[in-house]
Amino acid sequence: MPLHHVIIDTDPGQDDAFAILLALASPELNVLGLTTVAGNMGLDQTTDNARRIVELAGRADVAVHAGCARPLLRGPRPVPEIHGDTGIDGWDWAPARRGPEQGHAVDFLIETVRTHAAKVCLIALGPQTNVAMALRMAPDIADNIERIVFMGGGFFEGGNMTPAAEYNVLVDPEAARIVLRSGVPITAVPLDCTHATPAPVNWSSSLAAHGSEVMRACAGMMAFFERYGNAKHGTASRPLHDAVAVSALLWPELFTGRLCPVDVECAGELTSGMTVVDWLRQTGKPDNCLWLRGCSNPDEVYRRMEERLAKLGSGG
Amino acid sequence: MPLHHVIIDTDPGQDDAFAILLALASPELNVLGLTTVAGNMGLDQTTDNARRIVELAGRADVAVHAGCARPLLRGPRPVPEIHGDTGIDGWDWAPARRGPEQGHAVDFLIETVRTHAAKVCLIALGPQTNVAMALRMAPDIADNIERIVFMGGGFFEGGNMTPAAEYNVLVDPEAARIVLRSGVPITAVPLDCTHATPAPVNWSSSLAAHGSEVMRACAGMMAFFERYGNAKHGTASRPLHDAVAVSALLWPELFTGRLCPVDVECAGELTSGMTVVDWLRQTGKPDNCLWLRGCSNPDEVYRRMEERLAKLGSGG
Amino acid sequence: MPLHHVIIDTDPGQDDAFAILLALASPELNVLGLTTVAGNMGLDQTTDNARRIVELAGRADVAVHAGCARPLLRGPRPVPEIHGDTGIDGWDWAPARRGPEQGHAVDFLIETVRTHAAKVCLIALGPQTNVAMALRMAPDIADNIERIVFMGGGFFEGGNMTPAAEYNVLVDPEAARIVLRSGVPITAVPLDCTHATPAPVNWSSSLAAHGSEVMRACAGMMAFFERYGNAKHGTASRPLHDAVAVSALLWPELFTGRLCPVDVECAGELTSGMTVVDWLRQTGKPDNCLWLRGCSNPDEVYRRMEERLAKLGSGG
Amino acid sequence: MPLHHVIIDTDPGQDDAFAILLALASPELNVLGLTTVAGNMGLDQTTDNARRIVELAGRADVAVHAGCARPLLRGPRPVPEIHGDTGIDGWDWAPARRGPEQGHAVDFLIETVRTHAAKVCLIALGPQTNVAMALRMAPDIADNIERIVFMGGGFFEGGNMTPAAEYNVLVDPEAARIVLRSGVPITAVPLDCTHATPAPVNWSSSLAAHGSEVMRACAGMMAFFERYGNAKHGTASRPLHDAVAVSALLWPELFTGRLCPVDVECAGELTSGMTVVDWLRQTGKPDNCLWLRGCSNPDEVYRRMEERLAKLGSGG
Repeated sequence: MPLHHVIIDTDPGQDDAFAILLALASPELNVLGLTTVAGNMGLDQTTDNARRIVELAGRADVAVHAGCARPLLRGPRPVPEIHGDTGIDGWDWAPARRGPEQGHAVDFLIETVRTHAAKVCLIALGPQTNVAMALRMAPDIADNIERIVFMGGGFFEGGNMTPAAEYNVLVDPEAARIVLRSGVPITAVPLDCTHATPAPVNWSSSLAAHGSEVMRACAGMMAFFERYGNAKHGTASRPLHDAVAVSALLWPELFTGRLCPVDVECAGELTSGMTVVDWLRQTGKPDNCLWLRGCSNPDEVYRRMEERLAKLGSGG
Repeated sequence: MPLHHVIIDTDPGQDDAFAILLALASPELNVLGLTTVAGNMGLDQTTDNARRIVELAGRADVAVHAGCARPLLRGPRPVPEIHGDTGIDGWDWAPARRGPEQGHAVDFLIETVRTHAAKVCLIALGPQTNVAMALRMAPDIADNIERIVFMGGGFFEGGNMTPAAEYNVLVDPEAARIVLRSGVPITAVPLDCTHATPAPVNWSSSLAAHGSEVMRACAGMMAFFERYGNAKHGTASRPLHDAVAVSALLWPELFTGRLCPVDVECAGELTSGMTVVDWLRQTGKPDNCLWLRGCSNPDEVYRRMEERLAKLGSGG
Repeated sequence: MPLHHVIIDTDPGQDDAFAILLALASPELNVLGLTTVAGNMGLDQTTDNARRIVELAGRADVAVHAGCARPLLRGPRPVPEIHGDTGIDGWDWAPARRGPEQGHAVDFLIETVRTHAAKVCLIALGPQTNVAMALRMAPDIADNIERIVFMGGGFFEGGNMTPAAEYNVLVDPEAARIVLRSGVPITAVPLDCTHATPAPVNWSSSLAAHGSEVMRACAGMMAFFERYGNAKHGTASRPLHDAVAVSALLWPELFTGRLCPVDVECAGELTSGMTVVDWLRQTGKPDNCLWLRGCSNPDEVYRRMEERLAKLGSGG
Repeated sequence: MPLHHVIIDTDPGQDDAFAILLALASPELNVLGLTTVAGNMGLDQTTDNARRIVELAGRADVAVHAGCARPLLRGPRPVPEIHGDTGIDGWDWAPARRGPEQGHAVDFLIETVRTHAAKVCLIALGPQTNVAMALRMAPDIADNIERIVFMGGGFFEGGNMTPAAEYNVLVDPEAARIVLRSGVPITAVPLDCTHATPAPVNWSSSLAAHGSEVMRACAGMMAFFERYGNAKHGTASRPLHDAVAVSALLWPELFTGRLCPVDVECAGELTSGMTVVDWLRQTGKPDNCLWLRGCSNPDEVYRRMEERLAKLGSGG
């Protein structure tokens, strides 16, 4: 019996792909659907990627709804220099057999949260435009959201796009602010956590050894990621940010953090898009976010991930 | 045959009531529905008010859809001190016979604009939250919007809530910015225009003389408005801001302005919510808004308005 | 006996030149010295210009002290496209016979205000960097300043550099804010006032008819100003902004305005450098500035100015 | 022979007192004078404190010049809740035998830097108002400043007044920005460094054992600091922030950091006063600041400090 009924809001991205595959491979999660957003790539591409990923997993039945084509207030900011031209470069993907469902992602989010028998957990892996729009359009759904787990932000580690800002929050800081101020329980999986959870060195080789199509795709994407990350950062391993977020939902015992007040700077000249974490509770604002900052055993995270992914697609 | 197929987005407000009644009384306008937003009052109240207004006009058939209960990023800011406890104080309104339609205002806006045979004109009389959400959720609808006419802003006259900001834009400046940057043709009816279009002194007495229920309601609301406006501003007459906006759509020959670049300040310490009008085209930005600034014959505006309103409800 | 003991802080500029000459020609004003600032031109040029101007007036005895070479926080912003390469183009100026005094303008301001027998009036015709620095370094001098009269800002007329900002305040908005918040009595002579005080059409010809060297210099500068202004704005006459400021000190009976709260926007994205005038006293802040907005008789202003300037230099 | 000719700009503060005493006790430093600024306490108090400290050290000859009584743009922000009513609580100080020198701190800074035979090193231990004013008033002095060492800021550790901002920079962020953008070589000693350099547990007892008046005063102030710090932070030891800054100048071999681009956020809603450190050089801006982040041997720092302080006053 699943522990969480989830909708994954995503802008794949290789690490989104790992996150989605991990979720689909996990009996603890009942994936109610995917919603796509502009982020790493434009909306058409992220939507097509989402379809390819569920189909690769043998789960063509999973609904994919396309959402917002740009952030609330700012322009889109695709990063093909990081993820390659398709966003999921590293594998020779089969074309998607079909397009997304009818109906806007925001409407799907609202309707699903409102009508699902159990509370729904939202996993947000890209800019949080869709989630923010749903909360603003239908504030009543907040009561039916179990939790929002988002990959994004960074405080003690700084940012990865500017000294202060991480990509997902930088791209739509106003959306992240709406989410953080919504009153819904939130778990943040920021760079502070993902940098503490790097994949094993040369993990792609380990993945490649399994032989299934899913694992070969994963190995290809991981190799692409390793080449980029190691070239840019001079490190021997890199975290799969979005997959760490799903891991933190699945295996909270492997992660550490603190419930404290978190907000987003939307106005700064140098700090726009920064997540401001009141770790020492200096502001007197209410605790609104479990801010993950450490991982006790990164290797175990990726060992479990590999174990799960290896089972995917074979009988899907 | 109607000249414009309109949806009125509104937060009644006595002057919204006049605007809606004028629209319903005008054969040039095909009113496809009303959408309501939080503004002068909370959403439940503005929605109920909208129903009462269409029913008063004998047009219970007009669809009313409730929209966003608060601005995109900021808190709601009702002003009962201006409009009274109901927002449409001044008349003993009959209770609405029914509530709004099913379906969110934003979905109604998107669906109607997408599917209506002719292009649709949006008349925005409150904070522009609903319109902005629709444009962000479904950017494709921009091509099917004939024009957005909004009451809001002020530049040469300053603001009415702060020295720089007018109420509707101050309440949701980010929404106004989304609208102004949408690429849709826009007519702004700011304080610069409405202050140049005051109602005749003691207009309420003239309205009361007609005797129909609509006119007695209008006379009551106008008398309420006159008392407030004259007490606060020490003037003998006040403009009906939102009704001027509908007038400007109906009788453009009575108004003057300039097509020029207009944007909204969202970040200022003293100027947040200010509409910044590049009247002299100093910025080099593209012209995006017809900014109305003068009225050649205010008395004629209200004479025509009175003539139209007098016919309402009798055989409606 | 002089009515005001003044220090003129200036960045000449043709209109600064008129203002300085008018001050030197006026028995009501005891000119204690000039302080120069970067503005229309770089500091070296404005300082040299100031020397040339006092020498032209036959007042080589007037002390000129060089001040700040750039605004408090922002970069300098010279505008040779308006004032020509020297800032006082239009006349073939003799080289200055000497340089400025030893001692920084800020120290001269502080020392003079502190030690002069009567209270001192500061006339600020450029970015207010020097005045702000003096007030911050020596807050005690505020009590010995009779008044600060500054040319700058604009509210009902908008700005001349951006839709919202006038040059002098735009260049150093933080300095203007320090001045406006200093508690010293302030008279602002903004674009709202100077645009209401245009010079007579073709005033340069009238000036040229006098024949003195000062008047020929004035005629040349005015002709330069007329050519630029008329070409850019398509008007037949232009105001001499800085000279209007000195006129407002000399002949207050010709100008109208209101004492009300005024502040400077330093943070806006579109409105940085805007003077925000709370004409209707909506903010509840204290009145701190006499904001001039109208001139009852512009021709009389320039007639008096011409009369004064005509006497200069002959026996100086 | 001294290695550095220094002016100490300070707002004592117990940790300022340690810093000043350490500097006076160090043969490597030629202390040319102290300049005082409003910060931990108001200007009159910090100036009086500075006199008491040099007199305690037996160095009544050291010039103390009073500077700015408030930050450039913001209001003063004294913190008696941290430092006690006098700012140097913890010792029964003798009254200062005399007041500060004539002449403003800013003029003293400018004149000394301009005329001293060797380049001068500025040690800024409070809000950087005086240093910024001097740089703006006399930009030529930049070439004669060897280096500015300032205690302030924090990035990886966050702030101590808000989640993002440290006290000295928060109080006058515009001044810190002027300093960081001045082109002068800069060493920052932020919370990232001072938190890595805590005093030994119960260091006050060790100091008290020496018996000299200076050491008894130091022991008293340290005991005061320990009580406050341990009560607030629940730690067994606290860093003496300002004394760490002087230590970093004296013994750079004990500290680690990186030369990289550093700037100050002046506009943020949540991050105003934050030092933004581009540790990974993501911005492409030039390296302008050696940002200290670690200390290899905190105990050694305090051992050397104690050794130096113990010699003070005996034959001074």
